[in-house]
Amino acid sequence: MADSASNISEESLTLQPRFDADGLITCVATDAVSGAVLMVAHMNAEALARTVASGEAWYYSRSRRALWRKGESSGHTQRVLELRVDCDQDAVWIRVAQAGPGACHTGRRSCFYRAAPLGQTGTTVTLEFRDGDKAFDPKAVYGKK
Amino acid sequence: MADSASNISEESLTLQPRFDADGLITCVATDAVSGAVLMVAHMNAEALARTVASGEAWYYSRSRRALWRKGESSGHTQRVLELRVDCDQDAVWIRVAQAGPGACHTGRRSCFYRAAPLGQTGTTVTLEFRDGDKAFDPKAVYGKK
Repeated sequence: MADSASNISEESLTLQPRFDADGLITCVATDAVSGAVLMVAHMNAEALARTVASGEAWYYSRSRRALWRKGESSGHTQRVLELRVDCDQDAVWIRVAQAGPGACHTGRRSCFYRAAPLGQTGTTVTLEFRDGDKAFDPKAVYGKK
Repeated sequence: MADSASNISEESLTLQPRFDADGLITCVATDAVSGAVLMVAHMNAEALARTVASGEAWYYSRSRRALWRKGESSGHTQRVLELRVDCDQDAVWIRVAQAGPGACHTGRRSCFYRAAPLGQTGTTVTLEFRDGDKAFDPKAVYGKK
């Protein structure tokens, strides 16, 4: 957090991740080529350890309650070029080489394919697609579930 | 989440943020110039609404339990160039023009100033500084607290 009052982890050169009550830490994956944020997901201790050890992105799926190697179903793996931790060690940033056409299960390159134009003040905020074209057919890649 | 089973929010063109049990959503701020992740923080509904309306980054500080306009103490405000939401609307990505030398309360440009070199397999993971030089003196900027 940019406003943390905690000084425990700020200058430490030991990884001391601050997992939340569910044992998870937030991970931001950016595309090493474009710089775009591809996805925001979670890691548990095992996923983080496997990612650091292997240089391949592992996550923890909250919906499936399972360790998850990115691309294990789709083939769209993520090779990690750099893994950083933030000042109070409750977030991880990985710069990845994204294999295949995209990271998002909807078929887009990035999970962030909609923007909220700024200046909207009403109770309903309208989105618009940005980079919203599908890069792959999720049904063909993931199959019917 | 890149693996969400939810299809509720994926194609909607209405902002329907999925706040967590504490009423918060994760926000990733990247530097519009360098593409670097500057910080990961949280927004509540009010912070998100103010950010969309004003084009200035507002957050919710968990430690201070308060709405927080980025830069209100330091002058290091963030002008939002684009705000995107992810597939299941539980994360926000803002691309910002960062005012002043840096976003991190430790004095660095980014909160992510340490990396874990990959290939480490032991129980202790060692970090090293990356872009770890201080861009400003936090004591001079924030004062003693």
